[in-house]
Amino acid sequence: MRVLILGATGGLGSALARHLRGEELLLSGRRAEALRTLAGEVGGKALPGDLEDELEAKALLEGAGPLDLLLHPVGRAGRAGVREAGRDLLEGMLSVHFLTAAFALKHARFQPGARAVFFGAYPAYVRVPGFGAYAAAKGALEAYLEAARKELKREGVRVVLVRLPAVATGLWAPLGGPPKGALAPEEAARRVLEGVLREPPPEVLEL
Amino acid sequence: MRVLILGATGGLGSALARHLRGEELLLSGRRAEALRTLAGEVGGKALPGDLEDELEAKALLEGAGPLDLLLHPVGRAGRAGVREAGRDLLEGMLSVHFLTAAFALKHARFQPGARAVFFGAYPAYVRVPGFGAYAAAKGALEAYLEAARKELKREGVRVVLVRLPAVATGLWAPLGGPPKGALAPEEAARRVLEGVLREPPPEVLEL
Repeated sequence: MRVLILGATGGLGSALARHLRGEELLLSGRRAEALRTLAGEVGGKALPGDLEDELEAKALLEGAGPLDLLLHPVGRAGRAGVREAGRDLLEGMLSVHFLTAAFALKHARFQPGARAVFFGAYPAYVRVPGFGAYAAAKGALEAYLEAARKELKREGVRVVLVRLPAVATGLWAPLGGPPKGALAPEEAARRVLEGVLREPPPEVLEL
Repeated sequence: MRVLILGATGGLGSALARHLRGEELLLSGRRAEALRTLAGEVGGKALPGDLEDELEAKALLEGAGPLDLLLHPVGRAGRAGVREAGRDLLEGMLSVHFLTAAFALKHARFQPGARAVFFGAYPAYVRVPGFGAYAAAKGALEAYLEAARKELKREGVRVVLVRLPAVATGLWAPLGGPPKGALAPEEAARRVLEGVLREPPPEVLEL
């Protein structure tokens, strides 16, 4: 199985990589050094790049060749009220969560029957004071994926939206650390893969 | 009642303005000439400006003074598949639908009890092939409004999300015209105002 993990150096991305050891693994992320260390550890190929740059994303996705599984655990948390959040914060949040996903869907090459997996959010958890920008980025992503799912079905690609509870990763660093009871990344990765590799995969996987 | 209509020269915006004749009306839009004609017709004040520019939006919103009613019928339609949609299309769609709304919420001044009204979309109508970018922009907006509603309640501001069926306006021009059975803008405006001026206003108004 040819697998591309975007955001592979993140907490969830690297846990997914470790669970997929033995597959033909392509790993992408911005931190080239950390990426090479991970690639060495799991026997994958490091493809460093910045997915927020559409040209880099295009080169990376096209160069990765036809995929059986695309995983996109890419994101960043941040807190700001609607009376504070301005262009930079809003665009930045949309770019990391949503544009990187849209660029991946646009430029990826897929094997028939491939799965493309993205990470949304439970509305009740994120559409709360201080999280408007994060919620908007996930809202954009989830809406886009619904349209994408219908379009890509024609190419034999199954788009899967995963909603996870909080996972104890670096995502939470800007907020002072993960909330109590957050899932360990290894456990989250295990559940994600168990779910998305079902035949047929679910359209929405809520964990 | 002090009312600010953003996107006032659009089909729905100008219909809202005509229904609100007699109120203290502030009208904003990019097309200064059309705006002044409308302002003359309905007895309002023209405040031309580009809301996608945060500095212009800030000056405009702050200059408008404390509002009783803010209406944001701002949008643009466009069709593109996820295999075609790139940065310009996606960012442009997010900017028109979502950033203009976020800038308005950030910079507006409100009277206690004010209503702030935005226009979302029925997911089943827009999360369809060719409409991913439009759906994402509306998805971002709707998610953001849920967080904003909870935050602004503390200031005594009621955020209302309106979902309309298709309305026969210029929004549809890039797609070759409105779909059959689209609502006349005058009728849509009447229903919107009847709904949002209820006491208390609904959080979500589906028409």
